[in-house]
Amino acid sequence: MKIRSENMSFASREKTLKAFVHIADDVDTSANCAEGNATVPLSKATLAVKDLFDVAGMPTGFGSPIYDGNTPVTTAEAVRRAKSAGVKVVGKTVTTEFATFKPGPTVNPQNSAHTPGGSSSGSAASVGAGLVSHGIGTQTAGSVIRPAAYCGVVGFLPTMGCVSRNGLKVISPSLDRAGVFGRSVQAVSDLAGVIADLPKIAKSADAPRRIGFFEDETWADADSATQQTLQAYKSKVAEAGDVVVNLGNGKILLDLIQAQSDVMGFEALNSLEDELTNHEALISDQLSAYCAEAAGITPEKYATALEFGQAGRVWIETLLANLDAIASPSAKTLPPATLASTGDPYVNRAWSLLHTPCITLPTAPLQNNLKGAVQLVAGFGQDLNLLEIAKQHEMRVAEIGLS
Amino acid sequence: MKIRSENMSFASREKTLKAFVHIADDVDTSANCAEGNATVPLSKATLAVKDLFDVAGMPTGFGSPIYDGNTPVTTAEAVRRAKSAGVKVVGKTVTTEFATFKPGPTVNPQNSAHTPGGSSSGSAASVGAGLVSHGIGTQTAGSVIRPAAYCGVVGFLPTMGCVSRNGLKVISPSLDRAGVFGRSVQAVSDLAGVIADLPKIAKSADAPRRIGFFEDETWADADSATQQTLQAYKSKVAEAGDVVVNLGNGKILLDLIQAQSDVMGFEALNSLEDELTNHEALISDQLSAYCAEAAGITPEKYATALEFGQAGRVWIETLLANLDAIASPSAKTLPPATLASTGDPYVNRAWSLLHTPCITLPTAPLQNNLKGAVQLVAGFGQDLNLLEIAKQHEMRVAEIGLS
Repeated sequence: MKIRSENMSFASREKTLKAFVHIADDVDTSANCAEGNATVPLSKATLAVKDLFDVAGMPTGFGSPIYDGNTPVTTAEAVRRAKSAGVKVVGKTVTTEFATFKPGPTVNPQNSAHTPGGSSSGSAASVGAGLVSHGIGTQTAGSVIRPAAYCGVVGFLPTMGCVSRNGLKVISPSLDRAGVFGRSVQAVSDLAGVIADLPKIAKSADAPRRIGFFEDETWADADSATQQTLQAYKSKVAEAGDVVVNLGNGKILLDLIQAQSDVMGFEALNSLEDELTNHEALISDQLSAYCAEAAGITPEKYATALEFGQAGRVWIETLLANLDAIASPSAKTLPPATLASTGDPYVNRAWSLLHTPCITLPTAPLQNNLKGAVQLVAGFGQDLNLLEIAKQHEMRVAEIGLS
Repeated sequence: MKIRSENMSFASREKTLKAFVHIADDVDTSANCAEGNATVPLSKATLAVKDLFDVAGMPTGFGSPIYDGNTPVTTAEAVRRAKSAGVKVVGKTVTTEFATFKPGPTVNPQNSAHTPGGSSSGSAASVGAGLVSHGIGTQTAGSVIRPAAYCGVVGFLPTMGCVSRNGLKVISPSLDRAGVFGRSVQAVSDLAGVIADLPKIAKSADAPRRIGFFEDETWADADSATQQTLQAYKSKVAEAGDVVVNLGNGKILLDLIQAQSDVMGFEALNSLEDELTNHEALISDQLSAYCAEAAGITPEKYATALEFGQAGRVWIETLLANLDAIASPSAKTLPPATLASTGDPYVNRAWSLLHTPCITLPTAPLQNNLKGAVQLVAGFGQDLNLLEIAKQHEMRVAEIGLS
């Protein structure tokens, strides 16, 4: 099965991948994809932009027909910074409808019968397929880490607030964060270095690193491949001379997951009120159903969820005070064999609410040519330290396969 | 001098006022302005929308030629709510360039040689002239309270966060708030009631009210008309059977004013980075100069200013715990006799940073047909109580004239 595209034209690969909603006029789609390498300098980097960001002169639809014909005058700050660093914007990529749940046409680059995940489907898939070196997306529940994991690439979600949301359609102000995709930790680090203001916090001691693991009770729903991957990663941590720290059952995460869901539903309904009211006929059944359910979240429940998130951020900082990172699943399962759903962001929700930086690293292919993944999370603002750990563990994770 | 427009066509009055940048297609501009009354029911209300809010199908330019041809697909949530309540959107009104300092063409409705203030120039002026019953604007430094005061109308700025910013071009995320204009407290209260989620906090005791005044040292730069107005209002408070509380010199306000200025400059530069970088030729000299100065605000200085604002919010809550409101100038002077500047937001800056609700009430005409004004400020979330006090004191303020 063809994954990368070095010997295939951009147009042929894109024809089956269906990652783009708009390709820049000056892209030669008949040329072979030049950049199959994991890491290229930013001056040669190519960028896929989730169609939730404004790019001046390019149609911007947010995954909805409501915005047909909408062409922004200015460029989102994150994209503008990438361009200033010499990165070439290749085009706008498929997002689920308003970054929620209705899938677009994109397929998984590793196996076209499987979902690429969402909502940043096109950005993750085009990086996985080698059509571009880098992608940019957003996460409200799990929309950077999950599609990155599903598509077998590295996804990095910087600490809340480090990337400007100027020119981004915000669905949930308390949760939405921009994140980046690449085929190596160096690649995401390079791009994040220019689009994000990462705090210059002193690194913790180089070695040994202390990596925390919750007992798998919290992730009881995870499939066997995902659970085995985490077990294998535990061994790799020890092999690397680092320290495995048992964090107990992590049951508070279940409550944080519920709180994230309440915050997202309540805020999404507010953010999309004009679209829902004045363009009802162009709203999908999936989004209508989601909004009907979200309408049951009372202001009191929302306020409680926000407060719980705040308490959770104090809890996680305390927990991480004696750790370098926490390892956890990037997704509940390997990518489901469907294009009718983008999979479940369940395991990502708590981390979205906690605002901590997250990175997902791909394993070797585990089943059906699909890679697994491990997520590493660090404390608020510890982005540079997290990237360092990820660089050190990247090759070890890439070696993980199923016996 | 003609102020209201009952016996004049909309088109004739607008010709000299220059408040609108776009008038809705279904407005009969040859008809006389119907609503000269201070208060009309919302179902008969007409609304002027500052051209910083998206209104679907209407050109939206943010006071800058960069956005020529920009026509949003959706409507800002605040405006959508007003429309849902039956309010008729009459058009988009003049804003200074990106709600900063370069004046538009609008004149003061009370005296066309004087500035109407800014940045919500057109909304305030069109309400003052009687072209519409209501206006909506935004304040970062003093852009609701100052133009309302200059144009002789009531301006109300609800507590930070009570009005959605969805569909509003945000210049300074830590400061920008939407506010409303009307010709009576009832009018602004009616509109705020539908566009804002005002906290349902129990009112303080009905009477006597405790109204705080800082000693005028803080406002040493204020002109004599403004100082006399505040003195006259002090007497009116006592006449009404309420209590005047002396708050000392209020020197901390000077530091808050500086902090607001630092926060605004730093954030504006970030928010407008694409425009400044990629459309430099279309940026005014005034804005360029402002940005050049703002570029000197270091991230450290910005962080300090943000923290000082937070400390200020604790201070003002403590101070207001034993007060119903604080009275202060709505503007430093009566509207300056110029159209080359929109006047000085100096006395508004601290309150913008403090996030407290503010309302300005007009006096009788004081000089050159120009009314003065008094600002009342209440604690965070005490909007309903503030509106009650303003209703009780509205007529007394309207009686204030210079001897």
